[in-house]
Amino acid sequence: MSGLDRSGDAQVAIFGAGRIGKIHAGNLVRQPGVRLKYVVDPDAAAAQALAAQHGAGVGTVDGVFADAAVRAVVIASSTDTHADLIERAAHANKSIFCEKPVDLSYDRALRCAKVVREARVPCLIGFQRRYDPTFSALHARIAAGEIGEPEMLVVTSRDPGTPPLEYLKRSGGIFKDMLIHDFDVFRWILDDEAATVYATGSCLTDPNVASVGDVDATAVTIRTRKGRLAQINTIRRAAYGYDQRFEVIGPKGMLQAGNHRPTEVVASTAQSVSADLPEHFFLERYRMAYAIEMAHFFETIAKGGTMKTGIDDGVKALALAEAATVSWREQRIVEL
Amino acid sequence: MSGLDRSGDAQVAIFGAGRIGKIHAGNLVRQPGVRLKYVVDPDAAAAQALAAQHGAGVGTVDGVFADAAVRAVVIASSTDTHADLIERAAHANKSIFCEKPVDLSYDRALRCAKVVREARVPCLIGFQRRYDPTFSALHARIAAGEIGEPEMLVVTSRDPGTPPLEYLKRSGGIFKDMLIHDFDVFRWILDDEAATVYATGSCLTDPNVASVGDVDATAVTIRTRKGRLAQINTIRRAAYGYDQRFEVIGPKGMLQAGNHRPTEVVASTAQSVSADLPEHFFLERYRMAYAIEMAHFFETIAKGGTMKTGIDDGVKALALAEAATVSWREQRIVEL
Amino acid sequence: MSGLDRSGDAQVAIFGAGRIGKIHAGNLVRQPGVRLKYVVDPDAAAAQALAAQHGAGVGTVDGVFADAAVRAVVIASSTDTHADLIERAAHANKSIFCEKPVDLSYDRALRCAKVVREARVPCLIGFQRRYDPTFSALHARIAAGEIGEPEMLVVTSRDPGTPPLEYLKRSGGIFKDMLIHDFDVFRWILDDEAATVYATGSCLTDPNVASVGDVDATAVTIRTRKGRLAQINTIRRAAYGYDQRFEVIGPKGMLQAGNHRPTEVVASTAQSVSADLPEHFFLERYRMAYAIEMAHFFETIAKGGTMKTGIDDGVKALALAEAATVSWREQRIVEL
Amino acid sequence: MSGLDRSGDAQVAIFGAGRIGKIHAGNLVRQPGVRLKYVVDPDAAAAQALAAQHGAGVGTVDGVFADAAVRAVVIASSTDTHADLIERAAHANKSIFCEKPVDLSYDRALRCAKVVREARVPCLIGFQRRYDPTFSALHARIAAGEIGEPEMLVVTSRDPGTPPLEYLKRSGGIFKDMLIHDFDVFRWILDDEAATVYATGSCLTDPNVASVGDVDATAVTIRTRKGRLAQINTIRRAAYGYDQRFEVIGPKGMLQAGNHRPTEVVASTAQSVSADLPEHFFLERYRMAYAIEMAHFFETIAKGGTMKTGIDDGVKALALAEAATVSWREQRIVEL
Repeated sequence: MSGLDRSGDAQVAIFGAGRIGKIHAGNLVRQPGVRLKYVVDPDAAAAQALAAQHGAGVGTVDGVFADAAVRAVVIASSTDTHADLIERAAHANKSIFCEKPVDLSYDRALRCAKVVREARVPCLIGFQRRYDPTFSALHARIAAGEIGEPEMLVVTSRDPGTPPLEYLKRSGGIFKDMLIHDFDVFRWILDDEAATVYATGSCLTDPNVASVGDVDATAVTIRTRKGRLAQINTIRRAAYGYDQRFEVIGPKGMLQAGNHRPTEVVASTAQSVSADLPEHFFLERYRMAYAIEMAHFFETIAKGGTMKTGIDDGVKALALAEAATVSWREQRIVEL
Repeated sequence: MSGLDRSGDAQVAIFGAGRIGKIHAGNLVRQPGVRLKYVVDPDAAAAQALAAQHGAGVGTVDGVFADAAVRAVVIASSTDTHADLIERAAHANKSIFCEKPVDLSYDRALRCAKVVREARVPCLIGFQRRYDPTFSALHARIAAGEIGEPEMLVVTSRDPGTPPLEYLKRSGGIFKDMLIHDFDVFRWILDDEAATVYATGSCLTDPNVASVGDVDATAVTIRTRKGRLAQINTIRRAAYGYDQRFEVIGPKGMLQAGNHRPTEVVASTAQSVSADLPEHFFLERYRMAYAIEMAHFFETIAKGGTMKTGIDDGVKALALAEAATVSWREQRIVEL
Repeated sequence: MSGLDRSGDAQVAIFGAGRIGKIHAGNLVRQPGVRLKYVVDPDAAAAQALAAQHGAGVGTVDGVFADAAVRAVVIASSTDTHADLIERAAHANKSIFCEKPVDLSYDRALRCAKVVREARVPCLIGFQRRYDPTFSALHARIAAGEIGEPEMLVVTSRDPGTPPLEYLKRSGGIFKDMLIHDFDVFRWILDDEAATVYATGSCLTDPNVASVGDVDATAVTIRTRKGRLAQINTIRRAAYGYDQRFEVIGPKGMLQAGNHRPTEVVASTAQSVSADLPEHFFLERYRMAYAIEMAHFFETIAKGGTMKTGIDDGVKALALAEAATVSWREQRIVEL
Repeated sequence: MSGLDRSGDAQVAIFGAGRIGKIHAGNLVRQPGVRLKYVVDPDAAAAQALAAQHGAGVGTVDGVFADAAVRAVVIASSTDTHADLIERAAHANKSIFCEKPVDLSYDRALRCAKVVREARVPCLIGFQRRYDPTFSALHARIAAGEIGEPEMLVVTSRDPGTPPLEYLKRSGGIFKDMLIHDFDVFRWILDDEAATVYATGSCLTDPNVASVGDVDATAVTIRTRKGRLAQINTIRRAAYGYDQRFEVIGPKGMLQAGNHRPTEVVASTAQSVSADLPEHFFLERYRMAYAIEMAHFFETIAKGGTMKTGIDDGVKALALAEAATVSWREQRIVEL
């Protein structure tokens, strides 16, 4: 991004002052040479509070895109605004950091990606797991040949609780809302693309989930073009918290990514030997990942190079989520 | 079995003096009130050696069934002899301990089960995992309600090495040879039956496996009648040894069965913190399970009651193996 | 501290721009309402670099104490300057954050503590382990009665490498340099004081350590006034890194504090099942502890109350270090 | 032992039909070529029951030593009979397997060892921990140089409950009763002898223990002739069971021996992630060790060679126990 190599700080706007917007804003202001100029949110009070915390101003969508001094935008607003904001940012030649997903519609995401490519603006899609210290160390060890070429992948992805129905209604369904991260992990770890997808699901945690046409537990199998096998198991409610593990088999062994714990205290009592539950949810578990992701965004803009998680990754994960949704609904194996 | 409550030891014959036959013979002679009378094996030297070790004689198939003093038989011979020997034992009113599988043909197994039922002889099929201390403790804790009703099951089942092609040719394929244990675990742990099975597989460890019409890695998904979900991942060659784990999710938490290690030594060096590999293969891993299984067999005969792993369990696991084989071959979801 | 409740940020000076000074400066500038005004270091370039990084100026000792706007000082300079700077800060009515130890001389430390008490200035001594998430969670669980009254304590404290002889010469010896943290942990966890101390030591990692009159491995036993028992084992060089564990026994069980790992990757190969080495050294291991410690310092100043690690804790840990030194040198049990 | 290479089984007598006698008898009868001929116990019913279980007869002390066909004796009777029975067995030229300790008096044990040496009979003292799979694997890995020469040892040795006072009165005190095993482990692992011993202790679990002149918790430090350091911490009552761990530091790393668990089930609930308690007490924890120990005894007799735990090991562990008792009682460092 041309703006960053000029004298003075890179000025940035953030869309969305909610839970994830606050995380990104906090990480953003710690980047050297970066200044948060605008916070934009339909909720004026939220925008004002976040802006005040970081010495920024409250902005508007139009204002941000009209301000040539703004070099980059962080899109952390509601999903239905992502594609429009990405396209406007691309047209305005601003670097783009956008939370997943690009859109709930695969076609819309595809068009959006085309705009980004044509505008040649840097664009990062927020698959933060790729930046997690544990996950990225595992990936690096695969790349270094520790277990040979990966052959099989088993992903465990469980949330600590089923979200409210209102959330689920607008979520695009479990495959686009929750498994999209796992689909991205699958592509990243196996470095391969899906040939077939089989997905099944059930309402196991809350019968009301069915009433909005969704499921809360899934079992997905992907066969890749190279004949490798991946299984993903997910559930919306794990009583013990956020369970984010995966394991990869290769000819020379296995690498496993385990959960992180808040502390390393172990208690031995008359009942059991017990350790902490996993870190509670994504904000805790991926705290480091979000910080590293934001640093990667600005470093890549400054030094050039490719974003580790580009808009094409967003589109391809969405393609898998759509295929899985079809597989589940139509009870058939889907070819890609 | 009437014979066991008479004065004197129960006399038993064993068919098969190979690897697993030796294990069973060793456990058999430790049962109080039980005496090994005959060892039968086409390999005369093997039969002789095992008989000598335990103070038994070498017998013949006909001799065993003609000897009214023989109250029970242990069938540890090659798979293609199982169904015939079971039926002959049933007709001769002898209690039956038979290694899995009942037969490679589901229809043949079904007929065999009918004979056993009509003869009303005690019959145990050797799904030894149900007797393993770790697995059976986990099962008991589910039954005690520790995690509520089980909802999801993930089974990891990996062998330390791909067997010779000659073995594979006669094995019935990976689903009947290897996963049949996992299918039994699935039925036992979820206490439910399969509604649909989806299986896919690949040759990942040895391209020659394809030449005998088999695969060496599989990913199976079972949806149960109650809507629960199970995933099984298997591979014939795990560089780190025999990997036999499963985890069960319920509304109140998760229970995991982990691998056993030969020792509890942990080494911390400049490279890593490392523990033992899992116990190498099934003879080591299930050593206790085989002993407990044999004790259960004779205790159940003596006290009456139902064998934990009866011939119907053998038939039902085989039905799943056949369904999985069809699903893999025909690339479709199979309904049961 | 009166200065903090006025309008404007609290202005702070830091003495020492070395390794630990940089850590403290980084944490300091993240505290809300706190501004780093001066960096003071005999190494002008180091002072300048650290000051520039945080938008501060380079100061002098006299300048800092003459500037009434400076409300607090962070003392991270060499050990021989601690007591003087603490006393000057106390006389100048500035809040004090000082790295351990107060001084290498127990008598000097005692006089220093008297000055602080009389000046009634807030003073925190940097026993950062008390702020570590794992250690403080364990402490809280003891306080909550999870294992009953603590009875025994075993502390493992090992460094990743023996420091240069030049460092050791000025360190005050292993008991004052390294075990002083463990003595503080002992007092904090058992909430009791030593009745007798027995210490022995050896040169096990480097014979040159003996040439400067020190040892590099120690075994210490403390008997408390209430009859509780504590053992501390230390060594300057653990090939696998920084090993900081302790365990506490009470009538209802045991609590253990384990090492932290950089990632949760586990590798299973043909050789072993291995996990990461512990975080390498104190800067990594106690990164969170240092941040929480600094936040505690400014929060306690702002809200009033007692510093968790006051100057008396510094004096008492030093008394134990002196007793242990005497015990080791004179080969006798020392009563306190 | 000359008797074992003759035709026919080696005939053996066991003294003591209590808890440990039963264990030894069960292992004894599984040795090939070994026959239990006599069980001797002042409790006639106990002797009769154990004899009947294994097809042996009930004998008397005099009868055993008068029977030339008896080639070996297993001494599992009360401690105060050990030395006499060892000497009588030595005079009668019978191989000796004797539970620890040789005697509660060091002088008596010394005289007893002299008799054994002069008689040149094989003699094994039952320090079963040396035969434990985990402990012996660790020892072998030290011998193989995995961590270099061992420098420090930390032993944790905790019982699941304080025994009755009647037991304690006759036990010889905690150092001879409980720590004698740890002293043997110390000598075995460090392959070195004590130069000084410091021991302190407290009554932490039951004040009545003091009334019989004993303690129930100890902290022991041993400095070896080569300058190595060992610490042992013990307590009679660990709420979570039998805790038997040790760790060894060398220049290239650390080896730790951990507890064994009955199963490898891990439960994750809303409260914690928990594993099994350690195996409950020594009969469970050292079940394998006792079996391997007995096999070693008869193999060494048959093949010749040195018992891994000879009578000198019994004497030297006792010397350490006496030194520790003196150190605790007189509150001083004891030189050996």
